[in-house]
Amino acid sequence: MAVTSSSMMLLRNLPTVGRIAQSVRANSRIFSAGEIIRVLPRIASPRSISSTRAAHNEEAAAKAASDTGAPTIFDKIIAKEIPSDIVYEDENVLAFRDINPQAPVHVLVIPKLRDGLTTLGKAEPRHIEVLGQLLHASKIVAEKEGIVDGFRVVINNGAEGCQSVYHLHLHVLGGRQMKWPPG
Amino acid sequence: MAVTSSSMMLLRNLPTVGRIAQSVRANSRIFSAGEIIRVLPRIASPRSISSTRAAHNEEAAAKAASDTGAPTIFDKIIAKEIPSDIVYEDENVLAFRDINPQAPVHVLVIPKLRDGLTTLGKAEPRHIEVLGQLLHASKIVAEKEGIVDGFRVVINNGAEGCQSVYHLHLHVLGGRQMKWPPG
Repeated sequence: MAVTSSSMMLLRNLPTVGRIAQSVRANSRIFSAGEIIRVLPRIASPRSISSTRAAHNEEAAAKAASDTGAPTIFDKIIAKEIPSDIVYEDENVLAFRDINPQAPVHVLVIPKLRDGLTTLGKAEPRHIEVLGQLLHASKIVAEKEGIVDGFRVVINNGAEGCQSVYHLHLHVLGGRQMKWPPG
Repeated sequence: MAVTSSSMMLLRNLPTVGRIAQSVRANSRIFSAGEIIRVLPRIASPRSISSTRAAHNEEAAAKAASDTGAPTIFDKIIAKEIPSDIVYEDENVLAFRDINPQAPVHVLVIPKLRDGLTTLGKAEPRHIEVLGQLLHASKIVAEKEGIVDGFRVVINNGAEGCQSVYHLHLHVLGGRQMKWPPG
């Protein structure tokens, strides 16, 4: 779960990102490179560099990550200790932009209380209400972003599903024609 | 929404499929080619022919379809009037294999009662429970199929989202490394 040297080179060369990276390093847990790349503010990460990097590295980041049950960087986003571009928020759900967008609109929707939902594969009957709230919030996000007539929701589970952060999150993508197969 | 001539040629050349196509034609509503291709029983449709066709045609099928609120072929699958390869079923949810699988496991999870959910974009607060049930059922499907440690859930909404049947359905895919971006 160590931050890779190439990622740190990228971080050092971007002052705003560097400050956040210092904050992350100062934390008791070292976050993975994939996690840092995912949530850094858009301003600090030119799309031409980071999107290409993320698209190619997402599978590798997913393989490097694991479901330990440890806190993730999403806890700090929920606590507003790390900035994010919030699109929608209510009592149960937070939605913010993915820093490596794979479409003109790419928003992550997460439960504020993880409650064991590191992945969808851990869902129990007691989670049904929050799972429904997450899908309903995805529709609200699509409305807010002007894509409610054409969008895709994706949930990655585990390494083969391409999941790199073990706090359940829904990807809401749109603003372009989505293709088939879905990855 | 007419069945295309190329699809009908394929149907005529496959006796089992032909019988189903007759049943579909005999119905008061003419289903789209995309809908027929999606749900025909696996035995009638060699993967080498139909998967390639579907992967290439899914976007076109989505563009040809529209959210009219009319019944879809899923109603006949729920009623068992058209056969499907059912993976899981309970009071609220039906899960059956996609006839054009995009991964070794590819199952569709649908609400038995559509209740206005032609798309996720039509979701209202009253739908939260069934939306949660659908995601929870996706996890049950993943367990049953032996892919709970690595799978992807996809919901297409509208033409740009690549939706070709207007009855909300979740795609559960796994059994191979899923790629990024997700289509």
